[in-house]
Amino acid sequence: MLVNVRGAARHYRTVAFDSSRNQVLLIEQRLLPHEFKVIPTRDFAETAEAIRDMIVRGAGAIGATAAYGLAQGVRAFKSNSLSKFSHHVEKVYRTLKAARPTAVDPVNAMDEVLRAMKPGKTVEERQALALAEAEEFANEDVQHCREIGRHGAKLIRNGMNVLTHCNAGWLAFVDIGSATAPMYAAQAQGKKFHVLCDETRPRCQGATLTAWELAQQKIDHHIISDNAAGHLMQRGKIDLVIVGSDRTLGRTGEVANKIGTYTKAVLAKRHKIPFYVAIPLSTIDWNLKSGFDIPIEERHESEVLGAWGTVETPNSKLQTPKSRRSHVTHHASRSYIRIANPSSPAINPGFDVTPPDLITGIITPAGILKPNDLWPNRHRL
Amino acid sequence: MLVNVRGAARHYRTVAFDSSRNQVLLIEQRLLPHEFKVIPTRDFAETAEAIRDMIVRGAGAIGATAAYGLAQGVRAFKSNSLSKFSHHVEKVYRTLKAARPTAVDPVNAMDEVLRAMKPGKTVEERQALALAEAEEFANEDVQHCREIGRHGAKLIRNGMNVLTHCNAGWLAFVDIGSATAPMYAAQAQGKKFHVLCDETRPRCQGATLTAWELAQQKIDHHIISDNAAGHLMQRGKIDLVIVGSDRTLGRTGEVANKIGTYTKAVLAKRHKIPFYVAIPLSTIDWNLKSGFDIPIEERHESEVLGAWGTVETPNSKLQTPKSRRSHVTHHASRSYIRIANPSSPAINPGFDVTPPDLITGIITPAGILKPNDLWPNRHRL
Repeated sequence: MLVNVRGAARHYRTVAFDSSRNQVLLIEQRLLPHEFKVIPTRDFAETAEAIRDMIVRGAGAIGATAAYGLAQGVRAFKSNSLSKFSHHVEKVYRTLKAARPTAVDPVNAMDEVLRAMKPGKTVEERQALALAEAEEFANEDVQHCREIGRHGAKLIRNGMNVLTHCNAGWLAFVDIGSATAPMYAAQAQGKKFHVLCDETRPRCQGATLTAWELAQQKIDHHIISDNAAGHLMQRGKIDLVIVGSDRTLGRTGEVANKIGTYTKAVLAKRHKIPFYVAIPLSTIDWNLKSGFDIPIEERHESEVLGAWGTVETPNSKLQTPKSRRSHVTHHASRSYIRIANPSSPAINPGFDVTPPDLITGIITPAGILKPNDLWPNRHRL
Repeated sequence: MLVNVRGAARHYRTVAFDSSRNQVLLIEQRLLPHEFKVIPTRDFAETAEAIRDMIVRGAGAIGATAAYGLAQGVRAFKSNSLSKFSHHVEKVYRTLKAARPTAVDPVNAMDEVLRAMKPGKTVEERQALALAEAEEFANEDVQHCREIGRHGAKLIRNGMNVLTHCNAGWLAFVDIGSATAPMYAAQAQGKKFHVLCDETRPRCQGATLTAWELAQQKIDHHIISDNAAGHLMQRGKIDLVIVGSDRTLGRTGEVANKIGTYTKAVLAKRHKIPFYVAIPLSTIDWNLKSGFDIPIEERHESEVLGAWGTVETPNSKLQTPKSRRSHVTHHASRSYIRIANPSSPAINPGFDVTPPDLITGIITPAGILKPNDLWPNRHRL
């Protein structure tokens, strides 16, 4: 999507590949929204490090990064020996897999690359096939998000106020995103609408990443505290909710997503506001039989007890932040502040589960389905 | 209530009076929870300044401060001339009233002091009556909160998890508080329970003030993000909700309170969790006929775009805050950090309105009533 760099809007993908230099190009997401920087990784070990250190995050994005990282490692091999090559490939694969051991996307992506390499008769042929497959994987991720956008854009009408929670944007995929895809597609169709971003405490991905994306893309939006959506719904100021999902149960239609999603779904139900979840098909879990079986990660209390940001002068509290209209390329270092009472502990569940009775529809690349229609349609999804 | 100062728990009121020095004693609330300090005001002008500068906040607390401030000003008069005295009293009254011009509590409190002074035949008599009435006013505030506690404590049973939002604690009154009163009373009865404090973005009064109060009082508690309550209710981890109110409509039973209160009420309803509002009678508005007529203050966007706290070392993010077990008397300076994307604006409604169908009961000093029973009982309230 677009990023404004020194006054000009340029197109970027979250993850890309420079084949002449054999480098993976990643947006350094830990600096956002305060600084925009694309960093090249020089070899597969650096790519693995980038995954481990959260320079890149989000299911689609780390899948593509691992696929590219495998191709990168494979292409760096300098011999014609196929047996030595196999050992090398395995080493690269294991290094990248170990970078985020619990994630399933890097493994799935790399398995596709391995499969695609098989027909190659020489090292050179396999190297070429590996890169072609990694590119294919990344392009497919983009294509799936584009399809989510095509289906979801129909839900957005002129003048609507659309609420989203957390970041299920292009930064979590190779491009376009899931929850944001309908917004970007509607914008491309010339529709005028307004987005409300929940700040999404404790990690504030809405206030930082989603707001940054929308600002770069020049979509009209405001950030709100997570407490404000209920009031705004009551006053008729929200017409549609679209969120992403970390895991959707194919059998039950239950949706696990960032903490606070469930609350927004309950509020939307009370106010008869349509509540949609946008997901790539890879997010569907066809095995689990109950949302209560989804492990809810209990994250560190420091996230709730404080926040990360850039320190401003103590008296600037009642002024609009100084750099409101500046571009994001300035350097700004981030600090952690403790907000809460020093002697109080916190509880910090990272995710919650929204049951199907609160979900109007699930926007997939294959179309919009009722949550309970996932299972009957499992063979075509 | 109790405050731990250098290892020993001492009792404090939010507002008190030192008659020998003719000083109002105020807890400097702007330093909490990072520092605890009681500051004396040397004359009524300093007391007015303390109200204006938010050293003291909360309806009950500023009412008592104004009453004491009037007595303080009156007592400083050094002549026997009753006519000069009247002029002086008026000057003091106007100065204190102007400190928080939209608040009704200081005016009501000072009017009672003026009324009480009338029977005095000399300056000296009137001075004594003024102080006696100010003390009476403060004691009544405490007594009303104690009654709220007496009625509300019945709702808290052993082992319960009680959720509260924002700060309707003793810091907002002379002592005890409204939403916290049932908790303090239940604790005094030996009940064991656990409190969850919504952090209450954007100003985080739950994470700072309520958590501080509960920690000082040694009530078992955890802070949660505002996003977490829905999930915890779904998992059966919240049994009761008690909040305060800035304005309750006597005619309709609608409750205006800090933004996010409505959301918690909607969630509680879905999960059949009792939702109570604790209020002193002075909070009831007998005139307005609809919650939509309550003006909702739109506050400055900087509150949502950032946060206030004490800067910690950049690497401490994943550690428990350093001073977890320390006392609160250390000095720590507060900084503002900008969290959000610099080019994004925010919307920041300060309050919301909860309709009576979501409210199990209103805990008043006169007993617990259904919200729709306020109006039929208006003559005895």
